[in-house]
Amino acid sequence: MARINDNYLKLAAGYLFPEIGRRVGAYKEAHPDADIIRLGIGDVVLPLPEAVCEAMHTAVDELGSVGGFRGYGPEQGYDFLRTAIAEHDYGSRGVEVSPDEIFVSDGSKCDSANIQEIFAADAVVAIPDPVYPVYLDTNVMAGRTGELGDDGRYGGVVYLPCTDSTDFIAVPPDRPVDLAYLCFPNNPTGSTATVEMLAKWVEYARETGAILLFDAAYEAYITDDTIPHSIFEVPGAREVAIEFRSFSKNVGFTGTRCAYTVVPEQLRGKAGDGSDVDIRSLWNRRHTTKFNGASYVVQAGAAAAYTERGRAEVRERIDYYLDNARIIREGLDGIGLKVWGGINAPYVWSQTPDGLGSWEFFDRLLERAQVVGTPGSGFGSCGEGYFRLSAFGKREQIEEAVARIRTKLS
Amino acid sequence: MARINDNYLKLAAGYLFPEIGRRVGAYKEAHPDADIIRLGIGDVVLPLPEAVCEAMHTAVDELGSVGGFRGYGPEQGYDFLRTAIAEHDYGSRGVEVSPDEIFVSDGSKCDSANIQEIFAADAVVAIPDPVYPVYLDTNVMAGRTGELGDDGRYGGVVYLPCTDSTDFIAVPPDRPVDLAYLCFPNNPTGSTATVEMLAKWVEYARETGAILLFDAAYEAYITDDTIPHSIFEVPGAREVAIEFRSFSKNVGFTGTRCAYTVVPEQLRGKAGDGSDVDIRSLWNRRHTTKFNGASYVVQAGAAAAYTERGRAEVRERIDYYLDNARIIREGLDGIGLKVWGGINAPYVWSQTPDGLGSWEFFDRLLERAQVVGTPGSGFGSCGEGYFRLSAFGKREQIEEAVARIRTKLS
Repeated sequence: MARINDNYLKLAAGYLFPEIGRRVGAYKEAHPDADIIRLGIGDVVLPLPEAVCEAMHTAVDELGSVGGFRGYGPEQGYDFLRTAIAEHDYGSRGVEVSPDEIFVSDGSKCDSANIQEIFAADAVVAIPDPVYPVYLDTNVMAGRTGELGDDGRYGGVVYLPCTDSTDFIAVPPDRPVDLAYLCFPNNPTGSTATVEMLAKWVEYARETGAILLFDAAYEAYITDDTIPHSIFEVPGAREVAIEFRSFSKNVGFTGTRCAYTVVPEQLRGKAGDGSDVDIRSLWNRRHTTKFNGASYVVQAGAAAAYTERGRAEVRERIDYYLDNARIIREGLDGIGLKVWGGINAPYVWSQTPDGLGSWEFFDRLLERAQVVGTPGSGFGSCGEGYFRLSAFGKREQIEEAVARIRTKLS
Repeated sequence: MARINDNYLKLAAGYLFPEIGRRVGAYKEAHPDADIIRLGIGDVVLPLPEAVCEAMHTAVDELGSVGGFRGYGPEQGYDFLRTAIAEHDYGSRGVEVSPDEIFVSDGSKCDSANIQEIFAADAVVAIPDPVYPVYLDTNVMAGRTGELGDDGRYGGVVYLPCTDSTDFIAVPPDRPVDLAYLCFPNNPTGSTATVEMLAKWVEYARETGAILLFDAAYEAYITDDTIPHSIFEVPGAREVAIEFRSFSKNVGFTGTRCAYTVVPEQLRGKAGDGSDVDIRSLWNRRHTTKFNGASYVVQAGAAAAYTERGRAEVRERIDYYLDNARIIREGLDGIGLKVWGGINAPYVWSQTPDGLGSWEFFDRLLERAQVVGTPGSGFGSCGEGYFRLSAFGKREQIEEAVARIRTKLS
């Protein structure tokens, strides 16, 4: 019988979001009239910007016309979008990224999941804890880890503990690795890294030969002018880093699907025979062999987000969610909880009250306030005793959730 | 320095379509006024159906409205689309496929490239020759092959020679394999398989434990009522096969991007410890971990292709391309070439004249008739001495190309 990839069997059975769904479902069944407010999954709620919708309508009309029809586009993305990205996301901040270093895709989940494929099967991977589960799971699937231990950790992974003592910011490990995943502004903790902190990572990578996989999906939420939006704002990063960006959390494309990855021309890896290999060529080969470009209609919409009107509409949305985050922060602070994030990020990370475990607090919050959040332990063992609330909700829901937390949990 | 996946370095350097591009570019530079007709790449040219465009417009309006906005959809695809697929592509032909066996994606290239991930790293793979290059290349990248030999073949692959003597239809090998890729109607040869021929494959798979990876991206072009559209029309196939379908070549979604994969509930593989593993669960885990659903706008468009109006508009397009194929067939036949395909498929496969090699004929056709096709040898060594012409062109181009072939090549 066809032999399967046994690494899949190592994956932890109880994935975070299904378990949340199960508990919420059980609560709903017992309390059918409960008005549950969901601040668990980081999914946007505001409509797409008008400028974006208009561009998508125009694109659909083109595809429906004899003269305007487009078939296969370039796998790496249309020039009109890659040029807009290079100019607005990088050039405008004084960062050098050229269009041919940009690979447009249908989502950052895919990109951050697929990137590991171009590296060695026995590459050593450093992963923060707590962390967005995709980085870890895709390396488990690829066989770069041992079994899952009783401590909830996989053998062979270099975990980067992120704790209260470092403001939940990962610092370089004391040993060399091949790949290190970083995410700033961070999911789930909302932490951000200064140029100095990122410079330590770039220095580490340059000294040890690691490649940094930098997930900047939430960069639009940075309000502090001193916080870098891109790893490439750090001198020397072009030789050691890959960056992931998304249209999901700024333009609202969680259901529309568009993202991109930047692989600088200078980035090199090492082949088994010791020779240097151009990483951008490898990623290009992966991208063109296994992907056929993002939908033209979607790319047209993404490009419209860079017009003057599009940028203003995106800004309104970011501000709205950041106001939500402030309301959540103040609410949790008001009942005496220690909080992080929520200033340069759409996530608020808090200590649980009364020394409760993450899932215990999940249950208490659901039962007393009918509010759904995400248990910190679902992101890794260092998340135990913490909790994530997402600012992606409608204002009235956020206000109601916080009012309930203040009255029912204090 | 970060170690790379050395398997990428095994890939043949001169990929087919870039080499075609290089030769056409060189010809154009030498003959700037040449009116070149491109029948090389299999890309559709007719506009999207009106029913599809209307549905996409409605979907964009929904996403732009407070009440209609949708964020993350189910990774496996929306129920409205999975239900329409199950009913129209399977139920209407008496084939049992349930919506929860259908995984909607952004393209068949991705699906047929990604499917190998859920199987063992040392799984033995059978691949037809000639073949769509993605099946082979993705297995090379995953390390399931040895180096590329001087004969253009990779060590460790079980090649399935498809020749004139078998009407270019792959037959089961005389040894067991883990996976076997099949594609009917075939790209590049346009061949189709009868129920009896597919039953031999199903019998082989049931006896040896192989899983069949059945690419049916061109099923809409089947005009002969006796030819099966799906591997699942063969009794017993649900225990041994996965099927890939696409909206690219029927609805015209090459630039819009939507496809799906069917993994039957009954399908099992073998784990290293000898236990049976549910393949659908493995694919679901892969799909939900590394993919975030196809764009809502695109899925809404795909679903509209199943409405009565949508189906009629799709049928018009298929008929148009099939008429093109007939014109090409007759043209090649008219100059004395032996031809296959083009009746139940949008590709016409022909012998080259005068014993020319595939690339020699490519050059002759370009130089004498300014027509671009695809050299058969680009699809594998058994394609040497053959040539593919695509029926995906506008009628006037097809007619002009055939007129030139008749006058300049006979």
